[in-house]
Amino acid sequence: MPQGKVESVPQDGLTTRQRRNQPVLAVHTGPGKGKSTAAFGMAMRAWNQGFPIGVFQFVKSAKWKVGEEATMLALNELYERTGAGGPVEWHKMGQGWSWLRRDDDAEQDHAEAARAGWAEISRRLSAQQHRFYVLDEFTYPLKWGWIDTEEVVATLLDRPGNQHVVITGRDAPQALIDAADLVTEMTKIKHPMDAGRKGQRGIEW
Amino acid sequence: MPQGKVESVPQDGLTTRQRRNQPVLAVHTGPGKGKSTAAFGMAMRAWNQGFPIGVFQFVKSAKWKVGEEATMLALNELYERTGAGGPVEWHKMGQGWSWLRRDDDAEQDHAEAARAGWAEISRRLSAQQHRFYVLDEFTYPLKWGWIDTEEVVATLLDRPGNQHVVITGRDAPQALIDAADLVTEMTKIKHPMDAGRKGQRGIEW
Repeated sequence: MPQGKVESVPQDGLTTRQRRNQPVLAVHTGPGKGKSTAAFGMAMRAWNQGFPIGVFQFVKSAKWKVGEEATMLALNELYERTGAGGPVEWHKMGQGWSWLRRDDDAEQDHAEAARAGWAEISRRLSAQQHRFYVLDEFTYPLKWGWIDTEEVVATLLDRPGNQHVVITGRDAPQALIDAADLVTEMTKIKHPMDAGRKGQRGIEW
Repeated sequence: MPQGKVESVPQDGLTTRQRRNQPVLAVHTGPGKGKSTAAFGMAMRAWNQGFPIGVFQFVKSAKWKVGEEATMLALNELYERTGAGGPVEWHKMGQGWSWLRRDDDAEQDHAEAARAGWAEISRRLSAQQHRFYVLDEFTYPLKWGWIDTEEVVATLLDRPGNQHVVITGRDAPQALIDAADLVTEMTKIKHPMDAGRKGQRGIEW
């Protein structure tokens, strides 16, 4: 467990402190479980550091990850009442992004909705609105061509300040992997649904 | 995202409800990041369901995962004050298990300490003390032969009631993988420390 041991010291003219404060772009990809779950685990660390957190779920169903959402929002309430940790915002595409009007046309089209989500994230990155972002299942609108990967990568690489971004989903585009600082692939070795078992309360949601 | 879709229906004579309530043994292994982090993300889901949670860290340094620990203990305080979620206990070997006396000889020897940790977990499983267990970095005392893997597997397979167990760490023994319901391997594709960057606040801890 060599925390703090680095494999090489870069010739980048930066001090250790400067390097320690570089923002991280992380990608969790692959067919296995734990991509989103590990991102929300990272959000727990960020919360404890008082980082303002923004979660953006690019999913259709509002049912997904309800457990993590409820817990992160409980942490937000704790922050609001006691000042412990940091503020948490949780947005999901499934019900229509909360910043859009209910009757907005963008809600009717998933590609439009995904683009509206990315446009908002791009604005927030520019405004440094959060310190830690989870873009959950964001690889899919990239993979399907709904959002331009090159533009996303350019925006992420140019983001100001010290904003950490974690992107999850299968089949992350190569350009995103190339741009990322930290890429982990989750591989399924064995899953209970293979044996015909159903997902269950407290484990799957 | 076919949640609830199973690849086959087992001929085990169980109803869907019975299958849904089967306890899960999960293993997060492999050389990549996110093994523990995903386990703590699962604990967030379990907390939201009101499951009593027990975390047991088989690590030497008390510095590790301090962010997750602080956040999970904040959730425990929220439970104690408001009844939201479930209770959380967090134990770590590094400072000596909290249920052992400070001057206990077992603290002096890591193999002894690991065995004492497993003995306590085994008692708790028998007593159904928690509903969701994280045995963090537990593969190492198995790999090093400090704790007998066959005994661990037998105890886990025989655990009463509906207790979920998540075990993390590299090089999970094959017998443990065989016994598990859910096994995910985390593979490192790219890591900032490869480029000489140091771990940082809110990301690594």
